[in-house]
Amino acid sequence: MSTLKVFTDLQAAPELIDWLRQSIAPHELLLPAPTGASVLSDVPTDPLMQEADIVLGQPRTDAVLSSGKLKWLQVSTAGYTRYDTADFRAAVKERGIPVTNSSRVYDDACAEHVMAFMLANARQLPIGLATRCPNGVPEWNAIRANSRLLQGQSLLIVGYGAIAERLVELLAPFRMKITAMRRAPRGDEKVTIVTPAEVDAALVDADHVINILPDNPESRQWFNAARFSKMKQGVIFHNIGRGTTVNQEDLAAALASGQVGAAWLDVTDPEPLADDHILWTFPNCYITPHTAGGQGGESKVLIQHFLDNFALYQKGETLVNQVM
Amino acid sequence: MSTLKVFTDLQAAPELIDWLRQSIAPHELLLPAPTGASVLSDVPTDPLMQEADIVLGQPRTDAVLSSGKLKWLQVSTAGYTRYDTADFRAAVKERGIPVTNSSRVYDDACAEHVMAFMLANARQLPIGLATRCPNGVPEWNAIRANSRLLQGQSLLIVGYGAIAERLVELLAPFRMKITAMRRAPRGDEKVTIVTPAEVDAALVDADHVINILPDNPESRQWFNAARFSKMKQGVIFHNIGRGTTVNQEDLAAALASGQVGAAWLDVTDPEPLADDHILWTFPNCYITPHTAGGQGGESKVLIQHFLDNFALYQKGETLVNQVM
Repeated sequence: MSTLKVFTDLQAAPELIDWLRQSIAPHELLLPAPTGASVLSDVPTDPLMQEADIVLGQPRTDAVLSSGKLKWLQVSTAGYTRYDTADFRAAVKERGIPVTNSSRVYDDACAEHVMAFMLANARQLPIGLATRCPNGVPEWNAIRANSRLLQGQSLLIVGYGAIAERLVELLAPFRMKITAMRRAPRGDEKVTIVTPAEVDAALVDADHVINILPDNPESRQWFNAARFSKMKQGVIFHNIGRGTTVNQEDLAAALASGQVGAAWLDVTDPEPLADDHILWTFPNCYITPHTAGGQGGESKVLIQHFLDNFALYQKGETLVNQVM
Repeated sequence: MSTLKVFTDLQAAPELIDWLRQSIAPHELLLPAPTGASVLSDVPTDPLMQEADIVLGQPRTDAVLSSGKLKWLQVSTAGYTRYDTADFRAAVKERGIPVTNSSRVYDDACAEHVMAFMLANARQLPIGLATRCPNGVPEWNAIRANSRLLQGQSLLIVGYGAIAERLVELLAPFRMKITAMRRAPRGDEKVTIVTPAEVDAALVDADHVINILPDNPESRQWFNAARFSKMKQGVIFHNIGRGTTVNQEDLAAALASGQVGAAWLDVTDPEPLADDHILWTFPNCYITPHTAGGQGGESKVLIQHFLDNFALYQKGETLVNQVM
C-alpha cells in the first residue's frame, strides 16, 4: 500500500497530535491551519483536506463530498446527525467511502456509568452517605434491610447495542438474569433477546429496567404510563439513552404511586429540566447531567480508537463502528 | 446417618422457619420457647438445646460447653467474639466440634458495596447528582473530564480474604491491574500477592487502595501518615475493614494535602464519628454508616448458608466458613 495521507481537525494537545503522527508513520498526517474553532463546530474547509485519503474529525459535509481522494471518514463523536442525510448516504455509498464514528469511546464509559447507578441504588448510597447514626438504631436497620445485592436479580435492557454488550460483560460475575429488547435480533447476543412484540412479559419480570434507546420516531415516549404499569411494583428504572424516549409526566406519576421504586437518569428532555419540573421533587429520582459518556483523557482514547481502526483499514478488515 | 436434631434460636419470620424445617427433613428442627430477646443478645439457655446435635444461632458459651451431644455449631453472624477465647477454643477442639460462622452471607454484600464506592467515585456521582447544568458549560466539562473508567486502572487490596476474593471476581471484566497484600500467601490467589514487607512498591502504583483489614494488634493504625505518603498523589482510598485500622487524623491530613484524592469509608472509629470530627469537613470524604454487609432478606440468606453447610456436613465434607 502506498503512503496514505490522514487529515485531522481533532483539537487535542500537541503531544497527542505528535503521538498520532508517530503512530501512523510512515503514513502522513495533515493538519489544518490553526483556528479558534471548537471541535464540535463546523470547521471551515481546509485545502489540505482535499488531498487526504482518510479524514478523522468533524469535516463539513460539502468538503467530504467535494474531495476527490477520500477513501474513509471517521467522525470523532458518537453522534453524526450532520452526515445522516439521504443525499450524503447515497454519495458515500456510490463512491465506496466507509463512514465510521467514535461510539466505542463512549460505550465503555456509559456502561460503567449505568453500573454505578445500579450499585449506588442497590447499596443505598445516597441515603447512607447522608446518614450519621450508630449501629443498630432503627434508621440503620432500615438502610441495611433496604440494601440489596445485584447478584441474582433480574434485569431488562431496552435497546441492545454496543453499550448493552459491554454492560452484559461487566455484569457477568453478578449472575443476574438478563433479558434485552432488540428490534432485529441477530442470534449472536449473549443474553435472552425479546422483540418489541414480546417485551411485555419481560417488563413484568425485571427488578431493574435500563433504557438505552436512541432517539428516533419509533422510540419517542416509548416509556409511557402503559409500559410503566406493566413493570414490577418498585422496579428500578435507569435511562442512559435519550430523554425523549420517556414520557416524563408518566414517569413522575409512576414514582408518585410507588410503581417505580427509583429512577436514575443521565438524560432528560430538555437538559437540564426546568427548576420547577416535577421530577426534581422526588427524593428517589436521581439525575446526572448527561455525563455518562465522559472520561478524562477523552482525546487520547479517541485517537487510540482511530489507530485501532487504521490498523484494520490497512489490513482490509471490517472497521469498528461503521455507520455508513 | 440417624436423624439429627438441629436447634436454632434464629429470629426469623415463621415462613422462613417452616422452610428451614422442611429443608432439613427428615432431620428434626428444635425451637426455643418464644422470648422477646434480640437475635444479637445472649439468649437464655434453652433445655431443648441440650438435646441438639447441631446448633444454628447465638447460643451462650456455657450452654455450648455443657451440651453433651453437640457435634457442630454454626454462629449466625460474621463476628464471633463471644466464642473466641482460649478456653472455648480448647474445649471445642478437644470435643471435635467444628465452629462455623456466617461470614459468607456478608462477603458478597461487602464486595458489592465497595464496588459501588469505586464506580460512584469514578463516575463522579456525588457531584453529578448535585449539579443542574446544560451540556457544554464549564462545570459540565469539568465533571466529564474528572470522570474515569475503572477499566485499565490499578488497584491494591490490603487484606485478602473472602471479601477480596469476591471483589476480584466482580472486577474481572474491568481488566484492572489488581495487587493484594496478604500476610501468609497461599499461592492459589488469582491476583498478584505481596506480603507486608513488599507492600510499599504496590502502594506507589495504585490508583485505588481498598482496606479490608480486620481489627487486631498488628492492623491497628496500619494506614498512617507514612503509608499515605507512599501512595500515588490523588489515590482513592476505601475502607470496608475496620475503623481502627486507620489513623484518622493522618487520613484527614492526606485529604487536606491532596495526597488522597477521595476517601470512601463504611467504617470509622467510633461509629458514627463525633459531629465535630474533622473527616466530616472534607467534601471528598464519603461515609456510609457501616451498612456494607446489609441486605434485605438477610434471614433467608443466613438459612440458605446453613442449608449449604448442612448438605456438606451430611456428606462429611469440609464446611464453609469454619473458624474453629
